[in-house]
Amino acid sequence: MATFRPHFILLLLLLCIITFTQSTPLFLGKYAKKPNKLSSYKYKTQYFTQQLDHFSFQDSGNFSQRYLINADNWVGAQRKGPIFMYCGNEGDIEWFASNSGFIWEIAPRFGAMLLFPEHRYYGESMPYGSKEEAYKNSTTLSYLTAEQAIADYAVLLRELKQNLSAEGCPVVLFGGSYGGMLAAWMRLKYPHLTVGALASSAPILQFEDIVPPETFYNIVSNDFRRESINCFNTIKESWGELQSMGENTDGLNQLTKTFHLCGELKNTQDLSDWLSSAYSYLAMVDYPYPSDFLMPLPGHPIREVCKRIDSAADGTSVLDRIFYGVSIYYNFTGAVNCFKLDDDPHGMSGWQWQACTEMVMPMSSDPEKSMFPIFNFNKTYEEERCIRSYGVKPRFRWITTEFGGHDFKTTWKNSGSNIIFSNGLLDPWSGGSVLQNVSESLVALVTEEGAHHLDLRASTPNDPDWLVQQRVSEIRLIKGWIDDYNQGKGSAFSM
Amino acid sequence: MATFRPHFILLLLLLCIITFTQSTPLFLGKYAKKPNKLSSYKYKTQYFTQQLDHFSFQDSGNFSQRYLINADNWVGAQRKGPIFMYCGNEGDIEWFASNSGFIWEIAPRFGAMLLFPEHRYYGESMPYGSKEEAYKNSTTLSYLTAEQAIADYAVLLRELKQNLSAEGCPVVLFGGSYGGMLAAWMRLKYPHLTVGALASSAPILQFEDIVPPETFYNIVSNDFRRESINCFNTIKESWGELQSMGENTDGLNQLTKTFHLCGELKNTQDLSDWLSSAYSYLAMVDYPYPSDFLMPLPGHPIREVCKRIDSAADGTSVLDRIFYGVSIYYNFTGAVNCFKLDDDPHGMSGWQWQACTEMVMPMSSDPEKSMFPIFNFNKTYEEERCIRSYGVKPRFRWITTEFGGHDFKTTWKNSGSNIIFSNGLLDPWSGGSVLQNVSESLVALVTEEGAHHLDLRASTPNDPDWLVQQRVSEIRLIKGWIDDYNQGKGSAFSM
Repeated sequence: MATFRPHFILLLLLLCIITFTQSTPLFLGKYAKKPNKLSSYKYKTQYFTQQLDHFSFQDSGNFSQRYLINADNWVGAQRKGPIFMYCGNEGDIEWFASNSGFIWEIAPRFGAMLLFPEHRYYGESMPYGSKEEAYKNSTTLSYLTAEQAIADYAVLLRELKQNLSAEGCPVVLFGGSYGGMLAAWMRLKYPHLTVGALASSAPILQFEDIVPPETFYNIVSNDFRRESINCFNTIKESWGELQSMGENTDGLNQLTKTFHLCGELKNTQDLSDWLSSAYSYLAMVDYPYPSDFLMPLPGHPIREVCKRIDSAADGTSVLDRIFYGVSIYYNFTGAVNCFKLDDDPHGMSGWQWQACTEMVMPMSSDPEKSMFPIFNFNKTYEEERCIRSYGVKPRFRWITTEFGGHDFKTTWKNSGSNIIFSNGLLDPWSGGSVLQNVSESLVALVTEEGAHHLDLRASTPNDPDWLVQQRVSEIRLIKGWIDDYNQGKGSAFSM
Repeated sequence: MATFRPHFILLLLLLCIITFTQSTPLFLGKYAKKPNKLSSYKYKTQYFTQQLDHFSFQDSGNFSQRYLINADNWVGAQRKGPIFMYCGNEGDIEWFASNSGFIWEIAPRFGAMLLFPEHRYYGESMPYGSKEEAYKNSTTLSYLTAEQAIADYAVLLRELKQNLSAEGCPVVLFGGSYGGMLAAWMRLKYPHLTVGALASSAPILQFEDIVPPETFYNIVSNDFRRESINCFNTIKESWGELQSMGENTDGLNQLTKTFHLCGELKNTQDLSDWLSSAYSYLAMVDYPYPSDFLMPLPGHPIREVCKRIDSAADGTSVLDRIFYGVSIYYNFTGAVNCFKLDDDPHGMSGWQWQACTEMVMPMSSDPEKSMFPIFNFNKTYEEERCIRSYGVKPRFRWITTEFGGHDFKTTWKNSGSNIIFSNGLLDPWSGGSVLQNVSESLVALVTEEGAHHLDLRASTPNDPDWLVQQRVSEIRLIKGWIDDYNQGKGSAFSM
């Protein structure tokens, strides 16, 4: 029997609380492990001593931040060669580097240095020497915040530029998902260190009441409905079926068999969570060509899932159809003989800590528009859950105080510049991102058929025209930022 | 014998290390005590529970922040009445409120609410319950930073606006000196919460190598030279005289008599520091009319000091001339019979902590252009001094990393808006401020004859035309910000 790959299990471990427990859907965190197969991109791995706390003068010590660097194409400091910095997000930086082919591909034409700093508390960049120590309790975890991470990037940039006598070199930020949020926020908060940011699939508006809490699950649901209304309805119907079956004598045993689980199912909730996670992730990676980002998948994977659900032989039960469908996600290669559900859905992870402190993204499931079980975001419940799980109280309004978001069209119009918000509308995170131009230089690039930061991935022969075009626009805008900067600086380097 | 007023002594206690020990010249901190006589401005005093640490999730507790509020002229939330917020600086907020008459005077015409939040660790806004506890050691002091203070203002604003259903009301920031730096930085970092800032005499460029370290003392020296080259030369000569005299048998005793000191002089350094402080403060408050801001003084006080130095009878010694001169500063009312020098120049104060952590403003005294004793800023010395005094290491590059400053004309041009940098060129802090327009909305208002945030003071019948005109320009710009905001918001209120 083929064994599960470790990141499958970690995935399950993390994703199973998505829907019913009302916590924030996870980004890519636990996928972002050190890649199994190393990409062909070459870089040096270096380490930088960072202040653990940038915002107080308590003697809280330092930690070693990892960063990857490639200067093969850099035209050098004297010619003001640009520095492209990817803002590392919630995972191993090598994974993000190897999944950001776009940046590698455009580096030569810009004569750019590439820099991939790792986010504190992820990968190898662990305070207190080890993950075990760093994740020990709410005190050791307390410096795991976006503001501290962005300050890490700022300090690293300044030191590196000083060491290279590259103070005059323009810095362009890149980031996808949470990394895209960091890129956008860093550009807004540290415009003096950067010339622009490409923030791909960055849901910086997914806070408080800026967008309706139903947004995320409505988009996932729409992605299924647009492929097939029958598929949508079958999924919507399945939760009740699952529930009923679970209440039957021997029901859990039957469900275990239907879903080919390795171990005996303990409750229907675990199975619901497992299914919900698959749908949300399918929506994020609903790419137009075969890919192996989170899982090996065919192109248009939701279409394939729905085909299976819809085309099962007459008389096939709803739950059997669902199983055939989600097998596209969990077992496209056919190598898996049985599925192991998470047995510790509340295991501590960095992103879950962040979601329990400042990254509180309210999520609800709408009775009409959503195919998911109905639930409403509830602050009290969330607060209690976070206190119980991590001994910490969420600050629901902090992110919008620190970074804004409400009324952003007015407030950022004259006080921010040079950010591309790129989004694919199939991506459920797109609903919490910026989908309209705010000003001439705060630009939204929206693709109807795109999914989660597809534009940051390496080009493939299968790229549709609109994706090729999107990347051309991004390159043009980035070039414009650098040209503007160089005109102001009298650079010797022109592209 | 008339006794010294307590704030005189505190002043000395703080100022005596200005020159020779190379620490940052102080702003107004220790003058900013609860006013002896209360101003006629009426306000309510309220308290708000603030997070001690906004940037980590450690359980570091809360403190009670004081703020003053006046809504007498406010047209209310429904009519989008503006909120004018003064960013409290290093002292008792009542002192700043009573010395910011400009804001009180313009409130009625704007229909504005006035808000004066106090800076953490000053006045009554003490973490850990008391100043004694808050200032106990480097751990308790560690949250005394500009970033935390600005975050206090941001959090307070959002909560207050929510409680008043005033989310749609535009906020204009005000501040003078360090308060002006906070206003400018808050506008740059939190543009989503504000529509503009009047940053008066805010030396946000007085960091690292952005302006030459000689700037401050050169301006003080120029202020004296422009009144009289003889006066400048006499002061420049006096340090050597003082030194020689001090080395004579009975020299310290003679100096004690010459300068009418209450206690026996222990070393010449204390006296030099006392004199240097007077010159620097005279330059800051070299106002064109009689005032009682730091001390009761005549109009153009430097002119009066130099008149005394220059017009003493032939044969009067250099040191006697100096004494007659500085008596204008220390004893204009003639009520003081003897002067008490500081006997604890290294006593801990909030601003000195800030100057030893992030507010490191390099200062040197130029052999040619300065009338002060010569010295050069020395990082190693400064670091050792701060470790010795407060057990803390300065972060020399942090402020410029966090807030920028280098190359500000390029970097802020498209990423900041609606700030007035107002400066009077007599003010030695003007050299570290923004003296040229950066963009259409980042505007420098410079007055040749102005001194330290004169524009923020209440109008007087003696105001020269250029000062009246400066305030008219400020009102026009502020009105423009609010009108722009209201146009975007469809406000019911127009001025």
